[in-house]
Amino acid sequence: MKFLHTADWHIGRKLNGFSLLEEQEDVFHKMMAIAKEEDVDAIVIAGDIYDRSIPSIEAVALFNEMMIEMNIKEKYLVLAISGNHDSSTRLETGSYWLKTQGFHLHTRLEEAFIPVVLEDTQFFLLPYFEPFHARQFFGDDRIKDIKTAMIRVVEKMTEMFDQDMNHVLVSHFFAAGSSRSDSETSIEVGGLDSVPMDVLEVFDYVALGHLHDSRAITSHESIQYSGALLKYSLSEEKQEKGIRIVELKKQSVNNTFIPLSPLRDVAHITASHKELTTPSYYNQINREDYLGISLTDTTVITNLLVELRQIYPRIISLDRVTHESKKVEIAQKEKALVKLSPDVLLKKYFEEITEEELTEHQLTWIEEAIIQNRKEK
Amino acid sequence: MKFLHTADWHIGRKLNGFSLLEEQEDVFHKMMAIAKEEDVDAIVIAGDIYDRSIPSIEAVALFNEMMIEMNIKEKYLVLAISGNHDSSTRLETGSYWLKTQGFHLHTRLEEAFIPVVLEDTQFFLLPYFEPFHARQFFGDDRIKDIKTAMIRVVEKMTEMFDQDMNHVLVSHFFAAGSSRSDSETSIEVGGLDSVPMDVLEVFDYVALGHLHDSRAITSHESIQYSGALLKYSLSEEKQEKGIRIVELKKQSVNNTFIPLSPLRDVAHITASHKELTTPSYYNQINREDYLGISLTDTTVITNLLVELRQIYPRIISLDRVTHESKKVEIAQKEKALVKLSPDVLLKKYFEEITEEELTEHQLTWIEEAIIQNRKEK
Repeated sequence: MKFLHTADWHIGRKLNGFSLLEEQEDVFHKMMAIAKEEDVDAIVIAGDIYDRSIPSIEAVALFNEMMIEMNIKEKYLVLAISGNHDSSTRLETGSYWLKTQGFHLHTRLEEAFIPVVLEDTQFFLLPYFEPFHARQFFGDDRIKDIKTAMIRVVEKMTEMFDQDMNHVLVSHFFAAGSSRSDSETSIEVGGLDSVPMDVLEVFDYVALGHLHDSRAITSHESIQYSGALLKYSLSEEKQEKGIRIVELKKQSVNNTFIPLSPLRDVAHITASHKELTTPSYYNQINREDYLGISLTDTTVITNLLVELRQIYPRIISLDRVTHESKKVEIAQKEKALVKLSPDVLLKKYFEEITEEELTEHQLTWIEEAIIQNRKEK
Repeated sequence: MKFLHTADWHIGRKLNGFSLLEEQEDVFHKMMAIAKEEDVDAIVIAGDIYDRSIPSIEAVALFNEMMIEMNIKEKYLVLAISGNHDSSTRLETGSYWLKTQGFHLHTRLEEAFIPVVLEDTQFFLLPYFEPFHARQFFGDDRIKDIKTAMIRVVEKMTEMFDQDMNHVLVSHFFAAGSSRSDSETSIEVGGLDSVPMDVLEVFDYVALGHLHDSRAITSHESIQYSGALLKYSLSEEKQEKGIRIVELKKQSVNNTFIPLSPLRDVAHITASHKELTTPSYYNQINREDYLGISLTDTTVITNLLVELRQIYPRIISLDRVTHESKKVEIAQKEKALVKLSPDVLLKKYFEEITEEELTEHQLTWIEEAIIQNRKEK
């Protein structure tokens, strides 16, 4: 049994206003080429198919085409789940019919416990869910967080295990100990949103979605994120994007990350205004990429963004390099401010902003407010 | 060949803020009961499945259930098209897979020319389309309106006719000569939005959607609207809602309208405040219905709507009866006003609204403005 593991397509995602649909269509075709080359039996999509619960018409049209390409034209088995960015109800439409052609799209918690069997492998397709879904499903009010919920979910799945088969979990959550980038939407706050790895060790392979970095888990070879198909934020610029090819045998699991090159990359460059506008400099870089630019200049330059966009049409961020000496200066200033009393701090702030002094009346009012506040504490 | 003809479900429709989902679910089950009783071979839905291009989650969940009920549980063949209220792209998702189980959902013009054959009948499922779709499809810039487009469309369909079979057109437009109510969205203005009946006469039966009144066409027995499943506006209160059962034989077409009673009706009542608040009056009417109330009183009554809603929870409109004598008085007043010059008219209006007189300055300004306006003409 050999399958392709992918996740976090986020169809319809925009990068600082730029539509990525062209890049998404392109990388999908590259992924399909790998599927053919590797002669996989199935394509596994671990959630966040769309970027939004109500995707745009263009995003829907693109995924409609992809569905037909994967399952109708190329006749791959498809095993997919909804992620936290998808609307499970909207994605669910038609899933009964999809199933009849080997396109398994799970959007409800209860579907996770009926394994999809392909050859010698049981696939448990667990869509993204909230703790209250698990409370309802198990009828147990003690389930307050994802960790507790997952322990119960996995327990119930193991009851369905056929010991002669391999067991694969397809899921979408934050696995404890993995490293985030800043383009995933945090699912829940308070440290209870993550699932400890040891809960997942009963599976031969866990195909995860949610984190966009394929290298987010280093401790467990058989619990892996595929990562997103594209870089969805400047913070992901150093990440290699792609898919995983997973091969399951009776006694062994093997997974290989295969990188995919995007139609247009996301990159960060640091340079001076002079360099940026010099052909010998900009002809060496991919000006069509989505670029974050950090300027080394310190002087004011008018119409900067307009000028640079004529050379670099897809600038997604533009800032100034903060030099080390400047950083020290800011830090010292902050340190000094912390020591001031609230009334002095407020006085300085008022003067800095308004360029006027506080009146006697205002000063009295501030003192009273501070005293009142202390009493309440 | 016997089928059920329905249209204009408008799932998710609200009536003056009241959700009709409960009524829609109820009437759907009543429709399904008729399908069983009549032992039909197929269910034909002639467009406007949803009320909006982006239906609510609740509307999507309801239609998902209906789809499964019709085609998976009850195993009916379903022949459906998108209407002007539906988003064709959103509705299209999964239609390739639906087809494999006998659920034909056409959302694109080009799909209309491949007939769905059931027993001895060719069904041409023509989704709602705009003239520009036809221009693109036929590559003919002379197609400017729906009438011209439909002549071409029907011409192309007849090329596909198997002369040994019956031919049914399923479509969604305004047929010339039919009568509108005010709850259909006008598709296009200027009188070019309608299709002449004679274009449609080549078909043995034309199952139409768009108009909500099942009796909109009286001139042609075999060109019919099914009407909506429910009353979707107070203007439809006198219309009987339901479905049509169509039986096609070698030499004959028979269609019967079967009414469906709603969970809650839409009705209009005219009464005095005293009557409306008297138990012997209101116990005789269905107070749970969606009611339009016309009050016969002429005096001011405070908190009227709040008071009446305690007795009639679903009031969708509340107005005063305009008596004949009052109507005459208003008409005379209007007639007299028309004769006044613009400055006098404005002066009277200002005084009526503000209860103050225009100042000299304002009067001068008005005169100047009127003179200026005359010059420009």
